[in-house]
Amino acid sequence: MAYLLVCSLFLAVGVFAADPELVSDYAADPTATNASFFTFTAFHGDVTAAPGTFMVRKASLVEFPGLTGLGVSMAQLFFQPSSVNPPHIHPRASELLYVLEGSLAVGLVDTTNKLFVQKLGTGDAFVFPKGLVHFQFNEGQYAAKAISAFGSSNAGTVSIPATIFGSGIDDQVLSKAFKVGIDTIQTLKAAFAVKS
Amino acid sequence: MAYLLVCSLFLAVGVFAADPELVSDYAADPTATNASFFTFTAFHGDVTAAPGTFMVRKASLVEFPGLTGLGVSMAQLFFQPSSVNPPHIHPRASELLYVLEGSLAVGLVDTTNKLFVQKLGTGDAFVFPKGLVHFQFNEGQYAAKAISAFGSSNAGTVSIPATIFGSGIDDQVLSKAFKVGIDTIQTLKAAFAVKS
Amino acid sequence: MAYLLVCSLFLAVGVFAADPELVSDYAADPTATNASFFTFTAFHGDVTAAPGTFMVRKASLVEFPGLTGLGVSMAQLFFQPSSVNPPHIHPRASELLYVLEGSLAVGLVDTTNKLFVQKLGTGDAFVFPKGLVHFQFNEGQYAAKAISAFGSSNAGTVSIPATIFGSGIDDQVLSKAFKVGIDTIQTLKAAFAVKS
Amino acid sequence: MAYLLVCSLFLAVGVFAADPELVSDYAADPTATNASFFTFTAFHGDVTAAPGTFMVRKASLVEFPGLTGLGVSMAQLFFQPSSVNPPHIHPRASELLYVLEGSLAVGLVDTTNKLFVQKLGTGDAFVFPKGLVHFQFNEGQYAAKAISAFGSSNAGTVSIPATIFGSGIDDQVLSKAFKVGIDTIQTLKAAFAVKS
Amino acid sequence: MAYLLVCSLFLAVGVFAADPELVSDYAADPTATNASFFTFTAFHGDVTAAPGTFMVRKASLVEFPGLTGLGVSMAQLFFQPSSVNPPHIHPRASELLYVLEGSLAVGLVDTTNKLFVQKLGTGDAFVFPKGLVHFQFNEGQYAAKAISAFGSSNAGTVSIPATIFGSGIDDQVLSKAFKVGIDTIQTLKAAFAVKS
Amino acid sequence: MAYLLVCSLFLAVGVFAADPELVSDYAADPTATNASFFTFTAFHGDVTAAPGTFMVRKASLVEFPGLTGLGVSMAQLFFQPSSVNPPHIHPRASELLYVLEGSLAVGLVDTTNKLFVQKLGTGDAFVFPKGLVHFQFNEGQYAAKAISAFGSSNAGTVSIPATIFGSGIDDQVLSKAFKVGIDTIQTLKAAFAVKS
Repeated sequence: MAYLLVCSLFLAVGVFAADPELVSDYAADPTATNASFFTFTAFHGDVTAAPGTFMVRKASLVEFPGLTGLGVSMAQLFFQPSSVNPPHIHPRASELLYVLEGSLAVGLVDTTNKLFVQKLGTGDAFVFPKGLVHFQFNEGQYAAKAISAFGSSNAGTVSIPATIFGSGIDDQVLSKAFKVGIDTIQTLKAAFAVKS
Repeated sequence: MAYLLVCSLFLAVGVFAADPELVSDYAADPTATNASFFTFTAFHGDVTAAPGTFMVRKASLVEFPGLTGLGVSMAQLFFQPSSVNPPHIHPRASELLYVLEGSLAVGLVDTTNKLFVQKLGTGDAFVFPKGLVHFQFNEGQYAAKAISAFGSSNAGTVSIPATIFGSGIDDQVLSKAFKVGIDTIQTLKAAFAVKS
Repeated sequence: MAYLLVCSLFLAVGVFAADPELVSDYAADPTATNASFFTFTAFHGDVTAAPGTFMVRKASLVEFPGLTGLGVSMAQLFFQPSSVNPPHIHPRASELLYVLEGSLAVGLVDTTNKLFVQKLGTGDAFVFPKGLVHFQFNEGQYAAKAISAFGSSNAGTVSIPATIFGSGIDDQVLSKAFKVGIDTIQTLKAAFAVKS
Repeated sequence: MAYLLVCSLFLAVGVFAADPELVSDYAADPTATNASFFTFTAFHGDVTAAPGTFMVRKASLVEFPGLTGLGVSMAQLFFQPSSVNPPHIHPRASELLYVLEGSLAVGLVDTTNKLFVQKLGTGDAFVFPKGLVHFQFNEGQYAAKAISAFGSSNAGTVSIPATIFGSGIDDQVLSKAFKVGIDTIQTLKAAFAVKS
Repeated sequence: MAYLLVCSLFLAVGVFAADPELVSDYAADPTATNASFFTFTAFHGDVTAAPGTFMVRKASLVEFPGLTGLGVSMAQLFFQPSSVNPPHIHPRASELLYVLEGSLAVGLVDTTNKLFVQKLGTGDAFVFPKGLVHFQFNEGQYAAKAISAFGSSNAGTVSIPATIFGSGIDDQVLSKAFKVGIDTIQTLKAAFAVKS
Repeated sequence: MAYLLVCSLFLAVGVFAADPELVSDYAADPTATNASFFTFTAFHGDVTAAPGTFMVRKASLVEFPGLTGLGVSMAQLFFQPSSVNPPHIHPRASELLYVLEGSLAVGLVDTTNKLFVQKLGTGDAFVFPKGLVHFQFNEGQYAAKAISAFGSSNAGTVSIPATIFGSGIDDQVLSKAFKVGIDTIQTLKAAFAVKS
């Protein structure tokens, strides 16, 4: 009975598998039969985001199962002029961003609400510590491109605007939390597709 | 001499120090000479928050050095009627909240912007996974009190409203990120003391 | 298919599974469909232990599967007057105990056999480091109640009296180890239901 | 001020340094100038314990600083005929014991008070999981010798008899916990040098 | 049966398997029904390697499933006179080697290519940090025997000669990397059975 | 200044240093006073390696102290035509390599001496698991450039050719290990500056 309980537990959560260090050899893995297992091809070419918008392309264990257990992942970030990667948090890893093309203004807020801002040119890098709010803004006239390294095979992303104003949190809670009227909250919510 | 060397190390790096498991005995620690080292007395009595407000009292390694290396901490939460603990994230630990008095409405948003809400009565508990946005709201007519356990000696807190609207992030970045006009952003900022 | 593979893994090994940090989103978990997954309701009300006895009520991953992967748990401790929580060890977590009602005398023994004792009143807290022997004693005339936080979803308990004298360890081993006669060992064993 | 607080914290605990993985090269370490740093010579020859007694010789980071950060250690165990290594727990590592000479009866108690006993001959090995009570007994007529591997540079030892009856725990607590009279407790305490 | 169960696990998941700390009790494990689960008997007696050769016998989780989740393993090393354990790396654990019989010359190279060499007599021990190249050489006239402890249940071995010259790496790559002619590379490859 | 401070730390403690998760806030860190602390500028522009050679430029905690405790780092790799990054191992992290310009042939050998080879074009990525031997070869006519992400702030590098043939390991050991004559070993050693 206790055994069934434990089994059902792990049966239930299954996909919540962790990012532990490997303790086996690839020889024992029927999916790692050739080098394709370790190869990722979805970073080819550039993405052209819509004017004024930002796009991201990830190589995490979701897109690249070969990363399982290896504690590292990457993302490509494409910024049209005047676009913003909204304030967000990666709950499972720090991010080291490197500007490949163009320039970016980046910001980071620590747990005492101190803001650190920096203007990065091509070739500059900046690190966003795990769990802290950060953002990037392409103030320039040209598109910008960056590549980010993460110290987890699945860093996760909590995007603040959509999380707060697009998830359906009660108006009253938000009004009190943000110290503004319900009308302002509704203005903010209108910009996001609230889940019904 | 070896001891001095190690001390100077921690003196030098201070805030970078980790929350590792202990590998030494307390007998070797000159500060752990008696049971006071393991005792915390700042949770005595209740705190009375101002009407409509929320207050927290922590027992993390900042307030209680005896927790160093032990991977656990606590907080007391006091809610006046109609008060909210604003949406926030703990970057270093999950939180298990237990309602001691009154009732609370709690909410949690996962990384797909799915909102989970629950009404908790006295004696109920709820867990907020590490790195996810969550909040509590005392909808009731009476004060509420809760105690939370954290799986880190210093869970950290990123409070979303103050982080976003009280840290001095550029209006243009926020306007684009939250998809509202500069005027709405300024209304939100006005509610927080922006750092100059 | 990949999903089935992972499931069968956890089905097969059950008890070997670890307490790792999550690397997936709850959206991918078919059991986390609503807030009940994160809610624990078995801490309602108080337990009345028999006179002179002690009782514990746990919220570990055994009772509360929502804690899986979150590295935190809680327990409620109810002490009748003159009751003792016998010397024990938690092999997987430190414990931070907070006295909700009444008073408790607590003790902790480090690896050099140094005893740390403390009298805790209502509102006091005390931390018992992982793997060290500790106990609580309600010396007072009134019932006492405490709540403990653990830095693991399943801290485990090794209760010394039952482990040593109730598990069937050979009399000769115990006589030599405790440096007393076989008769004293048998007196001690008689108090516990020795497994046959 | 906050800085001073944190500094004094680490100044205070200093010696509680952890067993983390190394992130630096030995070239940067002024104490690792030659191979002596990695060599341990205190395991030479055998120890002859007094008749009927047991002795242990350790190679942990206390005796062998070269183990720092490496997560492994060893111990030599010497058993005279009829000697016992009393029930004990290693809070920081599992132990893999290998019998070099003679034979040993070993025992292990899990958290449900189930006893596992085994008779080991020369060349046999047995593993004691981290945090569980275990013991060894040389029932034979000849001396026995074993070597143990630990998965920590400092496994630590909580010896149950001395911890419980040699640390000065109050008679009343022990009487209630072990369900025997004060006189039996005092018989047990008399066998150990209680700290004053 | 228990063995098959665990085997099928590792066969099935290969690279996904982890070496995490246990969070459950053995009582819930249908394979840990008696002490045999914790016992390893394949270290009995000595192995006699062919003249001039070296042999190893392991007690890792592959041979001893009872080690699962316990973070420790052992190996026996048997050296005929003039035999070498070739330069190799353990990717998942440091190794603490203890000389049981005879003598050994050992070597360790750090990441700055600094060589540490030591002559070990019977009773000496030496630690090889995780991930660094090391080797042992029996220069003596007599067989030597050692036992090694590892801080992982499956340390893994990357043997340099076979990895480099026996895996089929292109001659041109090796010629450039080792800065020698193709003929020298082919001489080296000839000594190993290159996989076709 | 901040840099000197951190350097002196690593010089002083060398092997004691860890890569732990942070448990404090940057506000308490006197070196993290502005965004420069999180910025890395030494990746500007390209490096032109000598004809036929390979060069690497790192952003690890040695060059970029802001990475301390963040578990991530990067490297830029510049390959002239016909150049090789020799077989090597990173003992502390997996590497995710992304080809920015040109093409590369890469290889990976698992612990069973199975070779995985892959030809990568611009935009392809490949992951090298922690502790496994791997290499890159620019077979093309044009220079190639790649950027690698590591899941540690200091992955470390063990370069096989220099470690084996440039560290001064005894000819006899190498002759036996590589199963070739002393003359071949001396040919190999001649290519590297052996430390005296």
